[in-house]
Amino acid sequence: MTTFEAIPPGATVGILGGGQLGRMLCLAAAHLGYRTHVYCPDENSPASLVAATSTVAPYDDQTALNVFASTVDVATFEFENIPAETIDVVQQSVGVSPSVSTLKITQDRLAEKQLCESLGIPTAPFAPISTSDDFASAAEKTGLPGILKTRRMGYDGKGQSTIRTHSDLDSAWMTLGAGECILEGLVDFEMEVSVIFARDRSGALSTFDVPENRHSDGILRTSRVPSGMAGAAFETARDIAHRLAASLDYVGVGAVEMFVTRDGAVLVNEIAPRVHNSGHWTIDACATDQFEQHIRAICGLPFGSTARAFDVVMANLIGDEVEQWRISLDDPLTKLHLYGKSEVRAGRKMGHVTTLSPIAPEPTAD
Amino acid sequence: MTTFEAIPPGATVGILGGGQLGRMLCLAAAHLGYRTHVYCPDENSPASLVAATSTVAPYDDQTALNVFASTVDVATFEFENIPAETIDVVQQSVGVSPSVSTLKITQDRLAEKQLCESLGIPTAPFAPISTSDDFASAAEKTGLPGILKTRRMGYDGKGQSTIRTHSDLDSAWMTLGAGECILEGLVDFEMEVSVIFARDRSGALSTFDVPENRHSDGILRTSRVPSGMAGAAFETARDIAHRLAASLDYVGVGAVEMFVTRDGAVLVNEIAPRVHNSGHWTIDACATDQFEQHIRAICGLPFGSTARAFDVVMANLIGDEVEQWRISLDDPLTKLHLYGKSEVRAGRKMGHVTTLSPIAPEPTAD
Repeated sequence: MTTFEAIPPGATVGILGGGQLGRMLCLAAAHLGYRTHVYCPDENSPASLVAATSTVAPYDDQTALNVFASTVDVATFEFENIPAETIDVVQQSVGVSPSVSTLKITQDRLAEKQLCESLGIPTAPFAPISTSDDFASAAEKTGLPGILKTRRMGYDGKGQSTIRTHSDLDSAWMTLGAGECILEGLVDFEMEVSVIFARDRSGALSTFDVPENRHSDGILRTSRVPSGMAGAAFETARDIAHRLAASLDYVGVGAVEMFVTRDGAVLVNEIAPRVHNSGHWTIDACATDQFEQHIRAICGLPFGSTARAFDVVMANLIGDEVEQWRISLDDPLTKLHLYGKSEVRAGRKMGHVTTLSPIAPEPTAD
Repeated sequence: MTTFEAIPPGATVGILGGGQLGRMLCLAAAHLGYRTHVYCPDENSPASLVAATSTVAPYDDQTALNVFASTVDVATFEFENIPAETIDVVQQSVGVSPSVSTLKITQDRLAEKQLCESLGIPTAPFAPISTSDDFASAAEKTGLPGILKTRRMGYDGKGQSTIRTHSDLDSAWMTLGAGECILEGLVDFEMEVSVIFARDRSGALSTFDVPENRHSDGILRTSRVPSGMAGAAFETARDIAHRLAASLDYVGVGAVEMFVTRDGAVLVNEIAPRVHNSGHWTIDACATDQFEQHIRAICGLPFGSTARAFDVVMANLIGDEVEQWRISLDDPLTKLHLYGKSEVRAGRKMGHVTTLSPIAPEPTAD
């Protein structure tokens, strides 16, 4: 067993990707005394505006990647669609957490589902689609209606289409590019939740309270804690996240999105190998937030307490909803977070607000 | 009455001074969606490492100051020994909060004490010393022992000397440069506290819970909340801070350090026209911290709630105490903050740790 030397404050944390997740990682790293170096193809990315150093270059620029890797003490990524080849280059010089093998699995919806299957963890019924010859058997396995998704490069509802009839499959598959896809059966869930977990090199695990998440058009709208899910389902959800993390030898913070059915079953929907939108409420409500916990995990520091001090509702500000920032401040217990994006686009996550309230007593079952 | 247009997120906040207070202001501003521009004479200042833009130039470089002022939407300072002439240059182009008149008063221990006197707010007995002819009458007014302090440029115990006898005065005054000084009588206090307040342009006021502060060699060591001070003294302390803030037409966060005597009297010791070391615990324990509240005040946003979620003890890491960072993390409820200073020097504030605990019930008097 190799011993991992902690990467001490003062060292530089490299972050691949310059979006809001990278930005909030930079802010957390700075509080702990780390320097940050952000690598992103875009000028003036949200993260670069708060980083000590920033590299603007494409993800396939080997020279820039080598320079980046040589100037950081540990690297991570904030976006699961970073090419695995990019990570391969960086990790020739410096450790990258989570690992590229984890990244590859979570970049592929089929591999993700198969991992769950291999661990006996329930998911929606699924079947791969490579050619139109697969349509009939896939639909038989999953039942219809279902959702056709590209195996790769999907996020925020992109790369997917609802399938109601066999004839929908053909047109949807063509629209999605007629490539490698996965057909998933619909789950009649009572709620969607996510487990934000952290795991370090020694295998130590930490989890946050579990939010209930509501989506619209595939984009997260709100996360609420407490979720109201039953205690037994909560234990199941946490256990699933821990088993997945251990099987991936995961290092860092990750998220597992899950469905909870009316009969209390818990099914995995997606694994995100990074800090997660449904964990943003931890910034304002927890002793340690998901961003700091990730920095601690990848730098080999012990985990901070995830104790929660408030009940919360986090709401995303998407597109021109960002104009609501002013109204949100009418409530002194609403915390505003904007990501420094100058261009407003439909569907673009511009910020979020977290509304705090005193922790309500647990309802007693009787 | 003039109406102040709020400076919206996306705008740039200029910060004069690049130390840890500027750094934590930058982090808070970033969460709200502001850009930051730090002006500091030193390369790689703690604040510049997290700012979107940084200017490295002396405080008397008029050209650099003019460029700085032309690129920011509002300016503030994180250090009360910034030359008033520097602020004068900047405010020709852009608003500066707190005002230069406030800065000038708080840069002069005598003017500060006289302001309190004019408002009927108690302080230690004091007398100005300009020449050695003033020694006898000053010592008679304050009593001995006392403390001789330079009127200007003092912080963290610098520029002061304890006076036990008349003969001490002569040597101490020479050591301090034989310039404008103030002799202060010693106060037999039960505890030292500070009120961290915020005031906006409309006159709205906000205060945090009051910490008990312990100093050693003139440097703050710990701040503890709750302080255990009596409710009546707390009301008095808050009222004093609010009266001082109103009389200065103060905009931003400031701190008033006070002595509480055994009979419950509250005396003002010092006014700091900026976020304050004794308010660092608000980062981890409050719904809104002092840094965010300052950004809100100077940008014209409504105040956030200062509700406190934990009992806390904040301890500074001074000089080589910074090496304790690792041990501090053995407690998951201890929050580490390091300032990114590469050079450790005796007496230099390198970071702080805040230890959280659940809020204890108030002791009942009976």
